[in-house]
Amino acid sequence: MRSSRRGSVDPFIVMDVMEAARKAEKAGRHIVHMEVGQPGTPAPRAARKALAEAMETESLGYTVALGLPALRSRIALLYKDWYGVTVDPARIIVTPGSSGAFILAFTALFEAGEKVALGEPGYPSYRQILKALDLVPVGLQTSAENRLQPVPEDFSGIDLDGLIVASPANPSGTMLNRDALAALIKACQAKNMAFISDEIYHGIQYEGRVVSALEISDEVYVINSFSKYFSMTGWRVGWMVVPDDHVRTIERLAQNMFICAPHAAQVAALAAIDCDDELTTNFEVYAKNRKLMQDGLPKAGFTKIAPPDGAFYFYADVSAYTDDSRAFAAEILEKAGVAVTPGMDFDPVRGVGTLRFSYARSTADIKEGLKRLQKFMATRGR
Amino acid sequence: MRSSRRGSVDPFIVMDVMEAARKAEKAGRHIVHMEVGQPGTPAPRAARKALAEAMETESLGYTVALGLPALRSRIALLYKDWYGVTVDPARIIVTPGSSGAFILAFTALFEAGEKVALGEPGYPSYRQILKALDLVPVGLQTSAENRLQPVPEDFSGIDLDGLIVASPANPSGTMLNRDALAALIKACQAKNMAFISDEIYHGIQYEGRVVSALEISDEVYVINSFSKYFSMTGWRVGWMVVPDDHVRTIERLAQNMFICAPHAAQVAALAAIDCDDELTTNFEVYAKNRKLMQDGLPKAGFTKIAPPDGAFYFYADVSAYTDDSRAFAAEILEKAGVAVTPGMDFDPVRGVGTLRFSYARSTADIKEGLKRLQKFMATRGR
Repeated sequence: MRSSRRGSVDPFIVMDVMEAARKAEKAGRHIVHMEVGQPGTPAPRAARKALAEAMETESLGYTVALGLPALRSRIALLYKDWYGVTVDPARIIVTPGSSGAFILAFTALFEAGEKVALGEPGYPSYRQILKALDLVPVGLQTSAENRLQPVPEDFSGIDLDGLIVASPANPSGTMLNRDALAALIKACQAKNMAFISDEIYHGIQYEGRVVSALEISDEVYVINSFSKYFSMTGWRVGWMVVPDDHVRTIERLAQNMFICAPHAAQVAALAAIDCDDELTTNFEVYAKNRKLMQDGLPKAGFTKIAPPDGAFYFYADVSAYTDDSRAFAAEILEKAGVAVTPGMDFDPVRGVGTLRFSYARSTADIKEGLKRLQKFMATRGR
Repeated sequence: MRSSRRGSVDPFIVMDVMEAARKAEKAGRHIVHMEVGQPGTPAPRAARKALAEAMETESLGYTVALGLPALRSRIALLYKDWYGVTVDPARIIVTPGSSGAFILAFTALFEAGEKVALGEPGYPSYRQILKALDLVPVGLQTSAENRLQPVPEDFSGIDLDGLIVASPANPSGTMLNRDALAALIKACQAKNMAFISDEIYHGIQYEGRVVSALEISDEVYVINSFSKYFSMTGWRVGWMVVPDDHVRTIERLAQNMFICAPHAAQVAALAAIDCDDELTTNFEVYAKNRKLMQDGLPKAGFTKIAPPDGAFYFYADVSAYTDDSRAFAAEILEKAGVAVTPGMDFDPVRGVGTLRFSYARSTADIKEGLKRLQKFMATRGR
């Protein structure tokens, strides 16, 4: 049967690691999971309770395409609470995860064949979603001096139609400060490039204040989600803030492409926003794990790490030890019993020499993982 | 800010009706809703119970991209139960509703600019999703003799890359029998056109056996959902069956574009499949409502109706009464207090002379709606 070129996107290399880890566990081995990009915690208790109650009293059919009005209003308040910014709830679109938001944003903003830049290393799905939508991803090789984030000079001579950035970033965990973010937005607006800010890790930052693109301009697309800070990955509910005059376009696209975000997840999300205590407890685990990693990774020999400003990842340059991070990750899994992510998913150029370590899971796991890594690297020799 | 042509898709005309109905209700009027395309019933009780329990014991993070293995296996059994067909669970992909399945299918099968045919009248989002993905929808004007379904002659001279059909169809409710379906599949395969069968209304058929495209060929894409028969619209969980050698492509696309279907919805869906008693009770309401409509619509003067084989719609040719179905629907809402859907959403050519009546809601509503329609039409004069 026929198939398209654009549908033939790259596999995640980390899937091989996960499959190998699964097999090892099935064979009876204990594996520490530092490859996963999601919290081990469930949705907050009050969120689950709100849904359990709604299931008894409501039919939970389709919501309107832009999302439950109460949820949109409540999200608008987050911008006041977190950044001191006033956002009209009419500009907030509830989406099926940030994934759904990317699809809506890319189709609303770009014609087939247009070019969208992204920093490398970066979230691999940007590239693959762009490709599936017949857009051309343009990787910008970032530098350690710029915290592995793009700067205007990286695309000054290139003909582009858009730029997507993430702060805190995956896999690096680094953030853009206000000046760096403003410079990127200004450069894009000067070139009629759409600026898309992926803020999915907001709320999980350890040093310095996290800045939303909405503090700088209303003429941007901002994408966020309940997956990370609110610990609701599997629920598939996120949101997007768009300029006033884009709301109707997005509404029509959303009606047709998704109908609505999952109703049950929207009910849970609305309650989750107010679960400060539980979310703070989750955050404190990340903060504790991060300190352990900051101390423990260098002891294992992983000294060249990006500034871990936020999210729950450390991104390490391991080019001194390998020129094949995939083989290196397989070796670490086999010999140390620790699953880690090879960098090729995030950076097709330099990823052969990098690894991502996640610390989203329990502190006990992190301690055990670090011990194993240290022992393995001591034995392996550096 | 920049925006794309492809992102500028058509609005749903029915939204105007719904907004007018909402305003009338806010002003204190009672409106009968014959415009809605979804059951009024919630997800089956056991489905909600399964989720309530899972929320206490599982973290409900991401599932694997293709869906929970137990759900995929259970869906495979449906093909045995419903059609006597053996389907390998490996070919079943759990999707975020049939909407997610359309996006996956269209991107996996077609390059930008390729042409995909669809019968008119038909589900309006086919056209809009295709457009957003830079594909070219080609409407085939169907005829009453062919039950408003396409036949191979409708596209014999046209250069096309794919065809999507629905049986039972929305808005017409008509079905393709085995011969008609086989003829379409054969014609497509002879021309290297992808064949996509939208089977979302399977389970809701009243006369004759419903036929799955999988009874005829494995070289097709079949799309289905838990939304209609299983009464789970707002949960956003559906599925797709693809040829063996397309599974890996779809898996990679799904990983990147959706990560996974909502975990909570997958848990509920797995339990819903076994809720025969409750689902049969729901079905019996549709069957009873359909009989009332079959008797009552002609009495109101709506005599030219498509054979209502399945789904929960009657599609009426009202061209004897109007050449502007939008205005006619507005008039019916205002004077009769019944919300109905103008045909232009489904058929850009002849929809000015058609209306869709839904009978998905309670029998009491249907009785009241029919009474109002009869009174209104008697007063209006035909």
